[in-house]
Amino acid sequence: MEYKRIRIGMVGGGDGAFIGAVHRISTRIDDGFELVAGALSSDPDRALASALRIGISEERSYSSFIEMAKQEKLREDGIQAVIIVTPNHMHYPVAKAFLEQGIHVICDKPVTKDLDEALALKALVMQSGAFFALTHNYTGYPLVRHAKHLVDSGVLGNLRVIQAEYAQDWLTEEAESTDNKQAKWRTDPEKSGLAGCLGDIGTHAFNLACFISGKKVQQVSADLTAFVDGRRVDDNVHTMLRFEGGIKGMLWSSQVAPGNENGLKIRVYGDKAGLEWSQESPNELWLSVLGEPTQRITRAGPGAGEEANRLSRVPAGHPEGYLEGFANLYLDIAAAIHAIEEGSEVSSVQGVIPSINDGVEGMKFINAVLSSSAHNSAWRPLEAAASNDSSLGD
Amino acid sequence: MEYKRIRIGMVGGGDGAFIGAVHRISTRIDDGFELVAGALSSDPDRALASALRIGISEERSYSSFIEMAKQEKLREDGIQAVIIVTPNHMHYPVAKAFLEQGIHVICDKPVTKDLDEALALKALVMQSGAFFALTHNYTGYPLVRHAKHLVDSGVLGNLRVIQAEYAQDWLTEEAESTDNKQAKWRTDPEKSGLAGCLGDIGTHAFNLACFISGKKVQQVSADLTAFVDGRRVDDNVHTMLRFEGGIKGMLWSSQVAPGNENGLKIRVYGDKAGLEWSQESPNELWLSVLGEPTQRITRAGPGAGEEANRLSRVPAGHPEGYLEGFANLYLDIAAAIHAIEEGSEVSSVQGVIPSINDGVEGMKFINAVLSSSAHNSAWRPLEAAASNDSSLGD
Amino acid sequence: MEYKRIRIGMVGGGDGAFIGAVHRISTRIDDGFELVAGALSSDPDRALASALRIGISEERSYSSFIEMAKQEKLREDGIQAVIIVTPNHMHYPVAKAFLEQGIHVICDKPVTKDLDEALALKALVMQSGAFFALTHNYTGYPLVRHAKHLVDSGVLGNLRVIQAEYAQDWLTEEAESTDNKQAKWRTDPEKSGLAGCLGDIGTHAFNLACFISGKKVQQVSADLTAFVDGRRVDDNVHTMLRFEGGIKGMLWSSQVAPGNENGLKIRVYGDKAGLEWSQESPNELWLSVLGEPTQRITRAGPGAGEEANRLSRVPAGHPEGYLEGFANLYLDIAAAIHAIEEGSEVSSVQGVIPSINDGVEGMKFINAVLSSSAHNSAWRPLEAAASNDSSLGD
Amino acid sequence: MEYKRIRIGMVGGGDGAFIGAVHRISTRIDDGFELVAGALSSDPDRALASALRIGISEERSYSSFIEMAKQEKLREDGIQAVIIVTPNHMHYPVAKAFLEQGIHVICDKPVTKDLDEALALKALVMQSGAFFALTHNYTGYPLVRHAKHLVDSGVLGNLRVIQAEYAQDWLTEEAESTDNKQAKWRTDPEKSGLAGCLGDIGTHAFNLACFISGKKVQQVSADLTAFVDGRRVDDNVHTMLRFEGGIKGMLWSSQVAPGNENGLKIRVYGDKAGLEWSQESPNELWLSVLGEPTQRITRAGPGAGEEANRLSRVPAGHPEGYLEGFANLYLDIAAAIHAIEEGSEVSSVQGVIPSINDGVEGMKFINAVLSSSAHNSAWRPLEAAASNDSSLGD
Repeated sequence: MEYKRIRIGMVGGGDGAFIGAVHRISTRIDDGFELVAGALSSDPDRALASALRIGISEERSYSSFIEMAKQEKLREDGIQAVIIVTPNHMHYPVAKAFLEQGIHVICDKPVTKDLDEALALKALVMQSGAFFALTHNYTGYPLVRHAKHLVDSGVLGNLRVIQAEYAQDWLTEEAESTDNKQAKWRTDPEKSGLAGCLGDIGTHAFNLACFISGKKVQQVSADLTAFVDGRRVDDNVHTMLRFEGGIKGMLWSSQVAPGNENGLKIRVYGDKAGLEWSQESPNELWLSVLGEPTQRITRAGPGAGEEANRLSRVPAGHPEGYLEGFANLYLDIAAAIHAIEEGSEVSSVQGVIPSINDGVEGMKFINAVLSSSAHNSAWRPLEAAASNDSSLGD
Repeated sequence: MEYKRIRIGMVGGGDGAFIGAVHRISTRIDDGFELVAGALSSDPDRALASALRIGISEERSYSSFIEMAKQEKLREDGIQAVIIVTPNHMHYPVAKAFLEQGIHVICDKPVTKDLDEALALKALVMQSGAFFALTHNYTGYPLVRHAKHLVDSGVLGNLRVIQAEYAQDWLTEEAESTDNKQAKWRTDPEKSGLAGCLGDIGTHAFNLACFISGKKVQQVSADLTAFVDGRRVDDNVHTMLRFEGGIKGMLWSSQVAPGNENGLKIRVYGDKAGLEWSQESPNELWLSVLGEPTQRITRAGPGAGEEANRLSRVPAGHPEGYLEGFANLYLDIAAAIHAIEEGSEVSSVQGVIPSINDGVEGMKFINAVLSSSAHNSAWRPLEAAASNDSSLGD
Repeated sequence: MEYKRIRIGMVGGGDGAFIGAVHRISTRIDDGFELVAGALSSDPDRALASALRIGISEERSYSSFIEMAKQEKLREDGIQAVIIVTPNHMHYPVAKAFLEQGIHVICDKPVTKDLDEALALKALVMQSGAFFALTHNYTGYPLVRHAKHLVDSGVLGNLRVIQAEYAQDWLTEEAESTDNKQAKWRTDPEKSGLAGCLGDIGTHAFNLACFISGKKVQQVSADLTAFVDGRRVDDNVHTMLRFEGGIKGMLWSSQVAPGNENGLKIRVYGDKAGLEWSQESPNELWLSVLGEPTQRITRAGPGAGEEANRLSRVPAGHPEGYLEGFANLYLDIAAAIHAIEEGSEVSSVQGVIPSINDGVEGMKFINAVLSSSAHNSAWRPLEAAASNDSSLGD
Repeated sequence: MEYKRIRIGMVGGGDGAFIGAVHRISTRIDDGFELVAGALSSDPDRALASALRIGISEERSYSSFIEMAKQEKLREDGIQAVIIVTPNHMHYPVAKAFLEQGIHVICDKPVTKDLDEALALKALVMQSGAFFALTHNYTGYPLVRHAKHLVDSGVLGNLRVIQAEYAQDWLTEEAESTDNKQAKWRTDPEKSGLAGCLGDIGTHAFNLACFISGKKVQQVSADLTAFVDGRRVDDNVHTMLRFEGGIKGMLWSSQVAPGNENGLKIRVYGDKAGLEWSQESPNELWLSVLGEPTQRITRAGPGAGEEANRLSRVPAGHPEGYLEGFANLYLDIAAAIHAIEEGSEVSSVQGVIPSINDGVEGMKFINAVLSSSAHNSAWRPLEAAASNDSSLGD
């Protein structure tokens, strides 16, 4: 493989932000990208200071993402792709600005603030022909890919039950009234959308369940709660799921569960076998074939499979973690962008990169959950969730 | 304490049964009981053979539980209590026969085949003045008692979320058409009642959640499934729970989840702390106080508390298990029976023994779940589940 | 199987003792024994009070074990076996008294105070023709039996490395100067012998390593320490081991390792596979066949094997613990005593019951370790450790 | 902090090598380095091909490390530091070449092929004034730093016992006769030195034990084995350790233990508390204060401490792994190099970077272990191991 780094820019991710730094590290791990431009903050001074600190030249530090999209388009060495790591409400306008310039977009989740925006963005992506990736990073873990492979190849038999959960504890108290920036915007419906915990992490669990199972959720029944006084969005999500093919599931997501740091966990059961994976121990996958002892499959260890091995940098027993999982997504994104720019096919492997369609699914899920919860947990189909207004009305 | 063993008899529990032997071992562990009579099977030959094998004399081996109740009442050395370990549909008639003779009853769960029977049984217990215990054995684990203590003493603060689950895999295939006796009766609505997995193990999880939290479930929303072709009762239970005081919960129970042997697990979260306990690792309890490292509290180890210590026979690090947990229930039952027979008060400690009221609650839970599931998961109050007919009708 | 309980007596195990109660519970679990006589304490009042509390009649409560041996021999309903649960220094005289009456002996470990006594006891056992069992109870765990089976059947290939450890923390501080009876006698060379931690728990780890591997230790190199000021026996044991067949090993034993409650653990590696078992999680055994994912074998679960199943009372996932493991030893002891009394062969299964030979091996191990440590860790053969004098002299 | 990347070169680490890629990723994670030159292989074609693939220009791809040292010194934009990732026998000559040019050296472990070389290298480092770091990368894990902090700050009290182990299974079979390059050179005494497993991973465990405890090993007693037929170096290491201050320890290292992938683990016990850390679960540290429940301290979680937080990129629950631990070393190395080049002090934090002294200690450890094992495990002081000849002679 020839050495050719993809030129990228970043919108959002100035000093004090969390996820921007995560994306930057992830792009560096396999050296497939070069960060050359940014609109890191809407405050010009903060934008520039942040830019200089991470090696972006003053010339290519922008205080307006619209200006950035235009200027970069004009440069011969302009960015090939932009990474969007702003609060949710800015995903749509930023993505729009760059897609309109034909610049590829890599966008943090959830895709937009609401479903209408997501559908509009999908239309834009279709028109632009540019590549759009949504960083549901947990799908990048090697053993998540292997879990998907086990399901796809029939090891579990016909699926029956999927139990997904994502629990944290950092919003147990009223952090939004402190100077915690993360807490502030994530609990502000103007910035995060109507879903709180549901949008922030519930969508990850939803995406993971669909990714591994390869199945769509058809209906949800949900009971949302905001436990902390004065909180304007949900901080605990209880849902029952009905997938296509008669599969039943549950999804629990919470940010008020003391002792849970980043407890994303999934269990999938078929009529032949079950599997279990937990994000906090990402280098092991538990496979239980009916009538056999449970196996502990390790990343890059015996039985881990081709895809998990492809995405491993170090041997089994040398833990890879969150950043490497994220970097795997960028590895595939880089290959996809190279393929597109060279006019070749995006391979099936790259086909698993979360796309605008996954983003739309996530927003439909959010809408259906909000609607169900607003209607005393009545089952709501995801497909009907096509318009924000009707489903959330009363 | 003076050495005085309580004379007991057993109904059910002949050769080949599972839970009968469990009860017998549990009564022997602390030597508080003496098994002297039995109607171990409705088949007289099998009853006698079984009896002789476990040291019951021919004279006191009965083939009729009604006869047993009468005869034992007449003897000076007659049994003081009977243990009922029959299939569910026989709990009520057997309990009735002994209660009418004023003989104490220790009954396996679920308490009866349906709620009507449970309410009738409650009336009988009230009339008889005899002691009635329901062996929700998991409440006997020392660290379950300590978990309850932590909640009661305010360590968790105001409770918010309770996640309960009980997963097994032994009914993943159609075991009821083999010669598996356990599978046969437990999937036969005539013998087990209308609830399958729900009644068999879901009620344990429900009971445990209520026991530890000290809170009642007010409403349930449920989605039951029978995954195995031809199965006549549910084998997977998905429910959302609303407890008193605004606590929300989920309960998952399944007997078709490969890799799960006896996966009863509970997590309770309040605004100050969370706790987690799993039946398969019963000698440890995880306590996470917000802002502090999670603690691993071990049975009889530092921080385990008085009640857990009272119920420990061997030091920390020497595992006690399922049978010892069961025996703890019998330890308290023995003390309660002694107190009653001596005319003294049943102590507060003995007050935690699962009672006929817990049995009734369990049946209300079953009814509400069945009703909710039959009505597309509409929320159903437990209190309204007072009559079988109305709630399950349509 | 016909119901016939073996009549037993107990020497030691009065109020306040730990291991006496453990033996009594273990004999009751499977109902194969009936405790009818005892010399529970050398203090007559305490002996009687203790006896009455556990259901031994006044007539058969003795204050002298010699008297007990004589009297019980004379009775038609006299005890068939005695359980010895005194401090170590009394094992030999008590065993002698009963063996001389032809009464079977079940003796707690270590077998005697020193090797000379052990060899003398062996001679007595040979002469008497009575059955002698040494309660190295950890060999009774079902998955320890299965581990042995895996080794015996060649699954591990040729053994190479054995890592054994047994760590506790209860003697981290100077408990012997408090009113802790257990600490007092176990650190008193007059009562426990010259080995402290080494004799108390190191011998368990040694026995377990030999039991599972089926191999003898030929030489040891050791470094003993008494970390607590004024302690008269070792509280930390470091040894390197050379087994027959070129197998190398290590054994660490400590009672001053904070955080370790009863940390007995063994790992065995061959050229085809490795296994790992830990006493604090006794219901799982980890088997790693080279080139395959590690398997978690559970007691009574898939792959657990016949012997583990034979010794299981409840299904997989229902934890059995320390007392059940101990009871398994008693189950086999009961069968062996029945066989002997009926004049039939002791089966191969019962052949795994720890015997006087295991006791002698244990004392040789203690002597060799003491000698090695006294000689700056020079390797010492176990066989040469045949006389106490020569090996410990200088 | 101003953005200024350190220019680095690499010797070794061409296509097919393992550790070279690890270093490259680790330097990129925090963006503190820029790889601009390399002598990646002694084969010029392979060197160039490898260089181009990772973005080194043809001009600065060297086939001779001596040439590289000279040329880079002459350039205004020459490298500031070199990373040495060759087989062990080349560490010394390469380091010498760069130190003589005053170029900083970052060297993989073990420091050299033998102690004489290590001592000679130490002299060179002293003379040169250049910075020298040895990548004992496991000291870079945040919770290893916290473990050291707990010891240093007295939480464990006076240390007593240290149990270190490092077990792998990848050399269980005779991999060196296959085309496994890693196996070939690591079992070739000409390239790896006289120590096999001992040098490759045993030195890591030794270093970790000394790093966390802050104590020196004074004497070792060892028993080395080469289990695989024809293997020319040890593949299993058993040692007992005596540290300064009366601390006792054991160290087991093996590459023939099936089921162990990268099992580096350390346990440290004092008279007040004990701690346990395992490399395969690097985001948790277990702290057991005597008389309190064991605490699970997580990286960046409550109680993790300043140093662990300083070295964390993502919040608790988002696993960081082997590469991030390695990158932490590079983070401190970058700060040290900046400090040196700016003429300021290397801070105390950077003072924990493994140095040439740690390298010398490691070689003394190797020599003492080899000597002890050659003398039937006689205790050998590390200090006397100052000359290769005398200690290994017979």
